[in-house]
Amino acid sequence: MTTSDKPGRVVVIGTVGIDDIETAHESVQGVLGGSATYAALASRHFAPTTMSSVVGHDFPTAHRELLSERDIDLSSLETADGLTFRWGGRYAENMNVRETTFVDLNVLENFDPRVPAHAKAESFVFLGNTDPSIQLRILEQVVDPRFVVVDSMDLWIEGDRQQVSRVFARCDCVVLNDEEARLFGGHANIPRAVRTILDLGPTYVVVKRGEFGAALVSDHGWFFAPAYPLDDVVDPTGAGDSFAGAFLGSLAAAGSTDEAALRRAVIYGSVAASFTVEAFSVDRLAELTRHDIDSRYVEFGDFAAF
Amino acid sequence: MTTSDKPGRVVVIGTVGIDDIETAHESVQGVLGGSATYAALASRHFAPTTMSSVVGHDFPTAHRELLSERDIDLSSLETADGLTFRWGGRYAENMNVRETTFVDLNVLENFDPRVPAHAKAESFVFLGNTDPSIQLRILEQVVDPRFVVVDSMDLWIEGDRQQVSRVFARCDCVVLNDEEARLFGGHANIPRAVRTILDLGPTYVVVKRGEFGAALVSDHGWFFAPAYPLDDVVDPTGAGDSFAGAFLGSLAAAGSTDEAALRRAVIYGSVAASFTVEAFSVDRLAELTRHDIDSRYVEFGDFAAF
Repeated sequence: MTTSDKPGRVVVIGTVGIDDIETAHESVQGVLGGSATYAALASRHFAPTTMSSVVGHDFPTAHRELLSERDIDLSSLETADGLTFRWGGRYAENMNVRETTFVDLNVLENFDPRVPAHAKAESFVFLGNTDPSIQLRILEQVVDPRFVVVDSMDLWIEGDRQQVSRVFARCDCVVLNDEEARLFGGHANIPRAVRTILDLGPTYVVVKRGEFGAALVSDHGWFFAPAYPLDDVVDPTGAGDSFAGAFLGSLAAAGSTDEAALRRAVIYGSVAASFTVEAFSVDRLAELTRHDIDSRYVEFGDFAAF
Repeated sequence: MTTSDKPGRVVVIGTVGIDDIETAHESVQGVLGGSATYAALASRHFAPTTMSSVVGHDFPTAHRELLSERDIDLSSLETADGLTFRWGGRYAENMNVRETTFVDLNVLENFDPRVPAHAKAESFVFLGNTDPSIQLRILEQVVDPRFVVVDSMDLWIEGDRQQVSRVFARCDCVVLNDEEARLFGGHANIPRAVRTILDLGPTYVVVKRGEFGAALVSDHGWFFAPAYPLDDVVDPTGAGDSFAGAFLGSLAAAGSTDEAALRRAVIYGSVAASFTVEAFSVDRLAELTRHDIDSRYVEFGDFAAF
């Protein structure tokens, strides 16, 4: 991590897929999804953004155009033989409980992401939730990254804890939800669980708490951001990834990773997540303007002032 | 509600009891508990506090002295024929899930609380969680209360919703945890659930979220307070009641119930709750100094600044 104030580029590595989503009120099929998709669509408002992922021959042109028209660098979005990654999820009435209805890895099974030459050096890197071995291979490609954020999930934490630890040790910031943090940290108590993660080497841990917001933890202490209060959470899919994208994008735009920049980044992340969940898939996120983001950012300033 | 800046008196009406508490790590028997106990021990740091409740002949002298030595006005702590209210609770490993192991109402079955003459007029009133018919009887005794805070629970919301609504309509602030708010409001979505409650008449709703803090909601918008990050939550019993006590006490001390005073009160409430859970029963709460409270209050200022 360097602390120059020169704005930087964001590199997002993760999944691009086609989702079927059910909630208690509505369901949609064949919509654009994937961790890299959400992260890049949030990040691009702040900084030049390169997306590294893989899709199949069936990936709809309209989905590709939606990304390219928003100035996301797709030079390392590979099209492989086979079908695009597909995922299905179902949310319970209160939206906090999600069940995966199916996963077809398809072309993701042989995913070997490449970071393009122009994005390799001194980038702000988001390692979306995927096999930790893949995350390590990406870390071997990037040169002097200015800040690396990593996401993971129970599947990898339970299945290959040692490899996940190796990834965390090489990142600046680990982003997990509270259950994942408890699981990885081996403590029901979140402060203790977080300390286990910080002890591996990352400077920051962000604990995502869904409708309760997010906490940023480091040696500087704790910073708490609320979730934006919404009357209608339509589809929580991608909230965490758009959080990570805006978080990293705002750091890249600031060219800084000091505590003040990190705190602002958590708020930008919370703003992006709050828009994402207002509609299915990327419907709201993709139509956002920077003005929308900045207006809601200002609202957050009043939520905790006393 | 009046808005004079004259400091006022707090009147706390609720239970005083003897608790048996089990956690995953330890258990205690025969300890001092009850909603009025916790609320009064928190409130008394801020304002003169009168406690109205009932105990049996078996109520230990040491418990009574603990309260009286801390300048809590016990002139309406009745001693009735029979045994003191007893309650047992067991917490799961993560402390968010509690099971009631037994309830012996004993003298509470015929609880007919009296507010003493010197505390009837222009007080700041906390109606602890109890039968809504009893809460209504208290509201009939007090004259021009300056601010009334009420707590309730699923038992009353499911059992006598109409009576609970009548109580809420006559209070300034309803304090519930998020599950109770969802249950009463009839919405999984908290902002909608809260609006249902506000529509009944109270100016404020406080949603308690355990380890995720608390939210204050009114026509002024949302205010979010985090929970103090603790490495060891020993016993969550009484967190909500000590929150309410410090919340109301700080309003009484300020003699104001404007938005700024309310926000500060939420932080004081969060501070009191954070100390309460550091030890079993009232062990930590009873030993607190005003300096302890003010030091932690200052720490909260850094938790949300960006």
